[in-house]
Amino acid sequence: MVDRGPTAGRFITVEGGEGAGKSTHIRLLAAWLDGRGIETVTTREPGGTPGAEAIRALIVTGAPDRWDAMTEALLIAAARRDHAGKVIRPALARGAWVLCDRFADSTLAYQGYAGGLPLDGLAALTRFAAGDLTPDLTIVLDLPAEAGLARAGRRTAAGPETETRFEGRDLRFHEAVRDGFLDIARKEPARCVVVDAAAPVDDVARRIAAAVGERLFADG
Amino acid sequence: MVDRGPTAGRFITVEGGEGAGKSTHIRLLAAWLDGRGIETVTTREPGGTPGAEAIRALIVTGAPDRWDAMTEALLIAAARRDHAGKVIRPALARGAWVLCDRFADSTLAYQGYAGGLPLDGLAALTRFAAGDLTPDLTIVLDLPAEAGLARAGRRTAAGPETETRFEGRDLRFHEAVRDGFLDIARKEPARCVVVDAAAPVDDVARRIAAAVGERLFADG
Repeated sequence: MVDRGPTAGRFITVEGGEGAGKSTHIRLLAAWLDGRGIETVTTREPGGTPGAEAIRALIVTGAPDRWDAMTEALLIAAARRDHAGKVIRPALARGAWVLCDRFADSTLAYQGYAGGLPLDGLAALTRFAAGDLTPDLTIVLDLPAEAGLARAGRRTAAGPETETRFEGRDLRFHEAVRDGFLDIARKEPARCVVVDAAAPVDDVARRIAAAVGERLFADG
Repeated sequence: MVDRGPTAGRFITVEGGEGAGKSTHIRLLAAWLDGRGIETVTTREPGGTPGAEAIRALIVTGAPDRWDAMTEALLIAAARRDHAGKVIRPALARGAWVLCDRFADSTLAYQGYAGGLPLDGLAALTRFAAGDLTPDLTIVLDLPAEAGLARAGRRTAAGPETETRFEGRDLRFHEAVRDGFLDIARKEPARCVVVDAAAPVDDVARRIAAAVGERLFADG
């Protein structure tokens, strides 16, 4: 855990492929933390500021071949720079807990493991964008790619969903994304907790709350 | 000069501050090269592809404090990646000469010399974006910042110009941009030619054509 001083908040990221339930579980975790009297800020990447949301719109819409993986990584780094400086760091500095839907691990998984870019180059880009900002805890919501895409596809069919650029990649791409997240979690067990996202939503929420309690509360 | 093989074209960039006359002199140089039977592609940065132009719109419009220098540099690198891969490299490969309004030197001048970012980090970003793509010749149109801003201001007053985000910076910023371009040219005399852009337009055009003739035609 990075020491940000006595009054600093905690930085929790929730990672996973399409349809893994990240936004649902961020909402549930925020409610659980609110119940313990903790100020939370829920946000997402790419996005989280007006500028970064404008960049997000370029990244997640349009044809799958609109950008190559390096262009995506550079756009995401630009959005991350804006988001880290204007939202995440100020919130942590005032003691809020930041719950972020995707962060640097998604860049490694999508543009690195699945997109073929070197992981060390992507890590250097994230350092350009976010300096030493690192999550205190990362929840990896793990789900077979096919199941996640089926969930995401139902969401798309149900509404005016336009953020379908990554869903349009083939199953192999999404399997590489999943394997990437699992590999990151294996390499950084002190930061990452893998949660089976195929379980019922209440069970997943309990697992996440337990991980947060164990890792981030002094009273465990 | 980078060896791109027997049929490859030449990559010429035109650099300088606001109001230095870059777009005018790119048009005149293209006409001069056309007259010698050379296929030219005129383009600009940030921009030059539909995707990169969408990124450009984010960079050059809005309030001066919309983005910090690092976010600008990352957005520009993303646009450069798209532009280099989809326009510049294919044109050079088929033997065309590419005339580009701004390239990597503008990133060094605006985000580095004037924006305060380390030059080596910016060079690393350009390598992410463009690999080893380097201009064969760079024309630096040199003009005192005050004179350039006055020209750019008349252009803005005359039409529906919205790309005023950088013009909104103070004179000191623009003087640092100018000094940056001159420093780059001093460090890389084999690549760069500084042309006094305060001279009459015909004289500037003749100087540019002479530099292209001397540097890029085997018969001088």
